[in-house]
Amino acid sequence: MNEALSRLKEMDTEIQHLSHIEALLSWDQETGLPPLAVEERSRQLSLIAGLLHDRITAEQAGELLAKIPAPEGLPDADRAFVREFARRYDRKTRVPKKLVVELARQGALSQNRWVEARSASDFSIFAPSLEAVVSLVREMASALGWEEQAYDPLLDEYEPYMKTQELERIFAAFLPRLKGLVARIAAAGREPDTAFLSRSFPLALQEKFGRQVLEAMGYDFRRGRLDVSAHPFTTKLGNADVRLTTRYNPEYFNSGIFGTIHEGGHGIYEQGAGAGQGDTLLADGASMGMHESQSRLYENVIGRSLPFWKYFYPRLRELFPAALKDVDLKTFYRGINAVRPSLIRVEADEVTYNLHIVLRFNLEKALLEGSLAVRDLPEAWNQQSAELLGLMPPGDAEGVLQDIHWCWGAIGYFPTYTLGNLYSAQLYAAMQRDLPDLEKEVAKGNLEIVRAWLAEKIHKAGRLYPAGELCLRATGEELDPAYFMDYLEAKYSEIYGS
Amino acid sequence: MNEALSRLKEMDTEIQHLSHIEALLSWDQETGLPPLAVEERSRQLSLIAGLLHDRITAEQAGELLAKIPAPEGLPDADRAFVREFARRYDRKTRVPKKLVVELARQGALSQNRWVEARSASDFSIFAPSLEAVVSLVREMASALGWEEQAYDPLLDEYEPYMKTQELERIFAAFLPRLKGLVARIAAAGREPDTAFLSRSFPLALQEKFGRQVLEAMGYDFRRGRLDVSAHPFTTKLGNADVRLTTRYNPEYFNSGIFGTIHEGGHGIYEQGAGAGQGDTLLADGASMGMHESQSRLYENVIGRSLPFWKYFYPRLRELFPAALKDVDLKTFYRGINAVRPSLIRVEADEVTYNLHIVLRFNLEKALLEGSLAVRDLPEAWNQQSAELLGLMPPGDAEGVLQDIHWCWGAIGYFPTYTLGNLYSAQLYAAMQRDLPDLEKEVAKGNLEIVRAWLAEKIHKAGRLYPAGELCLRATGEELDPAYFMDYLEAKYSEIYGS
Repeated sequence: MNEALSRLKEMDTEIQHLSHIEALLSWDQETGLPPLAVEERSRQLSLIAGLLHDRITAEQAGELLAKIPAPEGLPDADRAFVREFARRYDRKTRVPKKLVVELARQGALSQNRWVEARSASDFSIFAPSLEAVVSLVREMASALGWEEQAYDPLLDEYEPYMKTQELERIFAAFLPRLKGLVARIAAAGREPDTAFLSRSFPLALQEKFGRQVLEAMGYDFRRGRLDVSAHPFTTKLGNADVRLTTRYNPEYFNSGIFGTIHEGGHGIYEQGAGAGQGDTLLADGASMGMHESQSRLYENVIGRSLPFWKYFYPRLRELFPAALKDVDLKTFYRGINAVRPSLIRVEADEVTYNLHIVLRFNLEKALLEGSLAVRDLPEAWNQQSAELLGLMPPGDAEGVLQDIHWCWGAIGYFPTYTLGNLYSAQLYAAMQRDLPDLEKEVAKGNLEIVRAWLAEKIHKAGRLYPAGELCLRATGEELDPAYFMDYLEAKYSEIYGS
Repeated sequence: MNEALSRLKEMDTEIQHLSHIEALLSWDQETGLPPLAVEERSRQLSLIAGLLHDRITAEQAGELLAKIPAPEGLPDADRAFVREFARRYDRKTRVPKKLVVELARQGALSQNRWVEARSASDFSIFAPSLEAVVSLVREMASALGWEEQAYDPLLDEYEPYMKTQELERIFAAFLPRLKGLVARIAAAGREPDTAFLSRSFPLALQEKFGRQVLEAMGYDFRRGRLDVSAHPFTTKLGNADVRLTTRYNPEYFNSGIFGTIHEGGHGIYEQGAGAGQGDTLLADGASMGMHESQSRLYENVIGRSLPFWKYFYPRLRELFPAALKDVDLKTFYRGINAVRPSLIRVEADEVTYNLHIVLRFNLEKALLEGSLAVRDLPEAWNQQSAELLGLMPPGDAEGVLQDIHWCWGAIGYFPTYTLGNLYSAQLYAAMQRDLPDLEKEVAKGNLEIVRAWLAEKIHKAGRLYPAGELCLRATGEELDPAYFMDYLEAKYSEIYGS
């Protein structure tokens, strides 16, 4: 059995290296690929994807896994390794290669149609493509197999081991409180000043400030780098090579800085997971939701907190005297935390953001179950938008066509954004219990205290435990959305006096 | 046979993609790899090197090649394809993997010793390592096989199809004339003013000017990019992705600009070869010597010519008014062409440069034949240095330890630098015959005329013909070093009045 395990580890090492190489090809594509090289790059990426698929689904892997019948007898790390190797092997071998190829092909076509449809603000252009994709995704769900709900195996891709029913329970538990808070904020009649956020913020200075914050957060530039791309992302090219990208808008403050802090949270997680779990498949985030908890904890819970800006605001003001000289700390703090229901998810504040996710989750489930037809999607979207956000999209572009995710069949992904918010608040509450001086330290610019706690409780475990178990180990409780609502209510009742 | 050929082409496509992926991994390592990621990157590179080796030496490739017994019947491009595929297959299968691995291992060790030895300026620290490397290189030569000289199969790695005897004939043909020219220049008693070259040339402006020149040369930025690295190089990540790097010295003019132009010459060659020969092993330079002819033609024959600077000097002066306001065109031209025998090859002018190469070639051959022992190398070096350059290195660091090439066993590489110089002059002479207005056009900034001629005569052929045959096709004659000497004598008798 030991020999089988060592052989699996060797196979995994090669898989890790190949996936890091794939990550470099993609990173380079987003940060610096010459414009005419796009097609060639996609062929290079296909080649690596094929090599990866062959290795992940190798018959030999199945044979070796069969030789390790009782992982219970193994040490924690080995047990988790076998569990995750088998999980990857099972998921990849269950789906016929033909289906994978067809979904990739339809995904690419579908993306083109989506671009067209969005620019014409006309869902009917996209509908036939999306119908094909949804049908393939249902096939995929069947191939993966499920017992309770067809949504289960899709959610499981992004949030391993979580069931849809649990997600529904969690969403149901916070939705009424969230709606109540949104209503109280709207009724408060206060409108924070946000005009100053649209003054001039030169790019180079935004970058300089972003790097200062990343350094303070403990992102290790000796094992990473920061670049610019159209859409910010974090990617892992190796345990000692976790790269961030961001983008800057010279006339809107929030995009650059909070984008940088957000990716910094992801990056620190990956750097810590690699440090804890070596060069194996365990050196990764526990789930998308747990990953998102790290980015959102830094971006929102800390990065939009008063203690954080007590330290950083004077430094920021020094860099942007023209834009900020007449803006005091309190005004700044309220401005970056303004709550306003909006049509577009990616522009939403941390309160109403989750309503956008509930909307998408409801529709995805209905599509998958067949209770909603693709052609009826715009109407259903608008109805949900009116109900949840109190807003009616003026056209499909501002409604059902705003996100790219469904083009690729990435159904089951959206909920992890809200799971991230929920985890982040619960983790922060636990951190506060463990570190009574936390806010005082943050107000002195000591963010290392945050990183060290997260490294110990979350990062170094990598994928050793499913996200739910990791949450339990780190906070003493299973995921409880009350923490997030407590956090939001305390913060926004102060800001809005509601 | 057609089926065998198609299958070989498919195999080659995958080999091309993998080698482009390898190129990205290396490019990224030189331009932006986080410092702590070096070891991981080397493991990723080894993985790709292994995949490449398996594919290049695949048994199936040998079987398919055997099914194409008479490539003479094929169209030119297919015949060349089979010839080059077979050549690569033969060379890689002849050398036992054990020897390749051992040479790579010794090479890495040897490089560390070389760094130590150089910083102590003490060859004896490096000698045992170099002995091991030379012994492995001899094994390599035996494995590859040779009839006339052991140097043949090594030279053939860099300058395919050229024999050592031919190289000796060529070197012998120009050496007396070259020595004569160097002596006349020394005797002329003129010393061009070069002090202005060490004034302040801000990096960003050097880059701006370099990009202007590259654009004028016809380097296509939509299919490439320019970055900074410690040692300038050109690399191909795809037919539509040929990247250059350069470096800038803010206090010495020549490094940045001429380095950029040099790499631009390589880059334009690769871009043109890819345009002509698709995504196959033919889309590459014909040989290292032919490659170097393109970089040196642009760097020296054109880039250090009076017509070129007639156009570009006013533009350069606008960018660097402080450094160049009191320097007229003629002074500038003479300054960038100053000839002065020096100890260090990479700092040498285009005249004495070739003496450095003759020195290395003589020693490499003697080492390989066994007529020179590694331990006697410093003495032999110094003796040759005195004889050829009239200079005695004050220590090993400025003599035998100055180049890194031998660490890796790259014996046979140096002569291609001089071959590049020789080819460049002969090509330029042919270009002048074909384009009577060449210099007038260059003086108007029309470098497109140069690129178009080279594209037609050299670039688009890729590896369709061996370098020697390509030279014959492009110029009507076999390589004749008299062109290079004619070029040098005309240029430098004007500058030195000798």
